[in-house]
Amino acid sequence: MTRFFTEPQNISNKIIRLNADDTRHIRTLRLRPDEQFVVCDGNGTDYICQLGERDDHTVAEIKEQRKSIGEPSVKCRIFVAYQKGDRLDLATQKSVELGVHEIILFESERCIAVPNDIPKKIARLQRIAFETAKLCNRGIIPNVSAIGKFENAVDEAANSSDLTLFFYEAEEQLYIKDILEKHFSSSDTDGGVSTISIITGPEGGFEPHEVGIARSRNIPIVSLGPRILRSETAPPVALTTIMYQSGNL
Amino acid sequence: MTRFFTEPQNISNKIIRLNADDTRHIRTLRLRPDEQFVVCDGNGTDYICQLGERDDHTVAEIKEQRKSIGEPSVKCRIFVAYQKGDRLDLATQKSVELGVHEIILFESERCIAVPNDIPKKIARLQRIAFETAKLCNRGIIPNVSAIGKFENAVDEAANSSDLTLFFYEAEEQLYIKDILEKHFSSSDTDGGVSTISIITGPEGGFEPHEVGIARSRNIPIVSLGPRILRSETAPPVALTTIMYQSGNL
Repeated sequence: MTRFFTEPQNISNKIIRLNADDTRHIRTLRLRPDEQFVVCDGNGTDYICQLGERDDHTVAEIKEQRKSIGEPSVKCRIFVAYQKGDRLDLATQKSVELGVHEIILFESERCIAVPNDIPKKIARLQRIAFETAKLCNRGIIPNVSAIGKFENAVDEAANSSDLTLFFYEAEEQLYIKDILEKHFSSSDTDGGVSTISIITGPEGGFEPHEVGIARSRNIPIVSLGPRILRSETAPPVALTTIMYQSGNL
Repeated sequence: MTRFFTEPQNISNKIIRLNADDTRHIRTLRLRPDEQFVVCDGNGTDYICQLGERDDHTVAEIKEQRKSIGEPSVKCRIFVAYQKGDRLDLATQKSVELGVHEIILFESERCIAVPNDIPKKIARLQRIAFETAKLCNRGIIPNVSAIGKFENAVDEAANSSDLTLFFYEAEEQLYIKDILEKHFSSSDTDGGVSTISIITGPEGGFEPHEVGIARSRNIPIVSLGPRILRSETAPPVALTTIMYQSGNL
């Protein structure tokens, strides 16, 4: 079913007022009057609707209300370093497909492409997150923001997550499967972990002293396997393993 | 370490003859005489080398020989339907990063973009596979080929794999975790499965009668979770789950 997001204030008891963009989009779909579509409040609830007309505006008449099926039981935030070209576009799109809760950009030592206009970059990625969330059954639009320097990212991740993972391509001891299996056993798929933060680096990886900072915050340093993953591939791959192990895939 | 692939016939007892492209590349790297690099035979063996000069040609002097660490213990083939734009480029690049063994293209009912010049498409994807294999520590260059119609793909997959998985977005019963855990238990990570084929569809998904054909070959129909994945995302996500569960990530 076609999916729209709306602001909660547009939802009343039985109808949802659609904005001009959505109304135009709905007209191009040429829905039959009895055809259903989904309006999501961006907060995990889907409203199954049919078209209706009131006061010259297109409204969605609510037929049924239910929990959005696309929202995972764990909230994953990715802290991702600035990268060149369209790499962050891709990391954003794939991470939203895979159920990310929030995307937070930061600047690390080897970043070769910190944008001059960070608000513009955020707006672009937020637009990608919005379009992807509509197409892939998400119940929220993951938020995109920036947090400045590496240290801010590490502190924020460590201070506000049940589990934080720092991915480092030179790590050879601790593999992602070891740590996820410890936290999400098969018999108890949520393992007390409801918020996870993952931190991934830029094209050139992290500097050893940055790894040291993460370690000093007691953040586990984790490998994503013996093959080198491109910087935009690491976030969706890490998310996939988390969603898989936590029973959300 | 910088990585090159070579043909086995270039490898002799103590030296490897480098081709003109590789020699040019090595010169731009300005390697010190004692600096090491890897020449891989494309068959799972890495040769750790230093630069040497013989008969006016640049040669690599072999210092050490070892198994390529990037090759997984399971051989995964992806059978992937033709897709629009750069989607197959992306599916190829990400699948090679994630350890795919072979990529096989096929034409299914809802394909909206079967290329006129299939050999040209294959050559392009093979080039992407080659470049990606060099950068991500692979011990082989995954082969790219085409197999014609859907039925050929299904037959080939079913007849020459220990396990074949058919991914279908409308499947709601069998999830990827259920089937992989059955075949790869934690205590026995290879589970007798050494070759796996996965089949994924085009942008519009598979036709129900195509799903029926796969089912008639006893191929399990599998879900990749409640979120709709884009057609180019499904192959690397499926590969990630297989590599994770089989202890290759």
